[in-house]
Amino acid sequence: MDIAIPLFDRLTALDAIGPYEVLSRLPGARVRFVAVTPGTYRTDKNLGLVADESLDAVPAPDIVMVPGGMGTRALLTPNPLVDWLRRVHPTTRWTTSVCTGSLLLGAAGILEGVPATTHWLALDTLARLGAKPVEQRVVEHGKIITAAGVSAGLDMALTLAARVAGDEVAQSIQLSIEYDPHPPFDSGSTRTAPAHVVAQLRSRAAQAPGAVAR
Amino acid sequence: MDIAIPLFDRLTALDAIGPYEVLSRLPGARVRFVAVTPGTYRTDKNLGLVADESLDAVPAPDIVMVPGGMGTRALLTPNPLVDWLRRVHPTTRWTTSVCTGSLLLGAAGILEGVPATTHWLALDTLARLGAKPVEQRVVEHGKIITAAGVSAGLDMALTLAARVAGDEVAQSIQLSIEYDPHPPFDSGSTRTAPAHVVAQLRSRAAQAPGAVAR
Repeated sequence: MDIAIPLFDRLTALDAIGPYEVLSRLPGARVRFVAVTPGTYRTDKNLGLVADESLDAVPAPDIVMVPGGMGTRALLTPNPLVDWLRRVHPTTRWTTSVCTGSLLLGAAGILEGVPATTHWLALDTLARLGAKPVEQRVVEHGKIITAAGVSAGLDMALTLAARVAGDEVAQSIQLSIEYDPHPPFDSGSTRTAPAHVVAQLRSRAAQAPGAVAR
Repeated sequence: MDIAIPLFDRLTALDAIGPYEVLSRLPGARVRFVAVTPGTYRTDKNLGLVADESLDAVPAPDIVMVPGGMGTRALLTPNPLVDWLRRVHPTTRWTTSVCTGSLLLGAAGILEGVPATTHWLALDTLARLGAKPVEQRVVEHGKIITAAGVSAGLDMALTLAARVAGDEVAQSIQLSIEYDPHPPFDSGSTRTAPAHVVAQLRSRAAQAPGAVAR
């Protein structure tokens, strides 16, 4: 099971690392971080993550998992990463994304008319790229699985792990990463967060798209 | 708010990245990845993460956040990272860990008689290092906050974010990373996972300590 996670500058680290932590525990999995050029890429908060392989070295991954982050905005016009997504998608077993990673799938023409999700602040942009946006944590449509913002990648990856290797393997992975979430607040979605917290983030995002990493 | 996350070989990526994704969103926060020597460190699944600073360059962080992983086992005898933890702890505002990162706090003598937690498979080891192990997702004891396995770092970091900057900032961060967890299974703790899944992981861990990253 050959799994490719593309990196690019200004990605959001947890978008990539949540699914990586789950999928790398699948029996027989080989996870590779890939990029246009091998090397170090900097997240939106300046952590360096290393891509060991070029996109060209991974022409037929079984699973593609595209993270998001503010860096996606510079990748919505033709570029080698989006070209690679378009090229590998027909032969993947699963094509997946977290957060605004789905915008890159959209830019590659993969989501034309497809129900899909993204960070709650980017649903409009996803629609403009051809998808049918769904405000839901994990959206499955055939072999395309998209997740909502950042931390939703954990739920997406466990869903995918069950599809790939069965419920019991997914449950074992969940226990090994002790994913028994108990956040101290119930503020993780626009439905549950205090209204003024939602409004504040919306307004910050409208005024300065870079202010809220997504 | 100067936040230091030490890296070492064979750490578990999500242990570090969960809290990083939360804490780096704190107003005025500066998160630095530090190590004995600056450079690239490989996680237990071979992802390269970059430490930009040496431990010596960060002698007085406000917050220390120690990740875990199998690599902690090679760091329980005297070594520069544990020496650094012992040196910086007296002046931190918070000293924190995720998963087996607490073993390193223990090795530094910081947890003598202190209620603390770790990955569920490492509670015995934590006790041998002087702590009073508590099977709980997040354990606060004064300025020492420890988290259970891997994904528990998200809950720990949100708890810490509220202590540092208030509930509303923590709620806003939770919404920005859309942390509204809905795992497809309820298998994230020994209390909820199917008994045979728990038994299997226990037996794999007993036979080959490297088999379950923690």
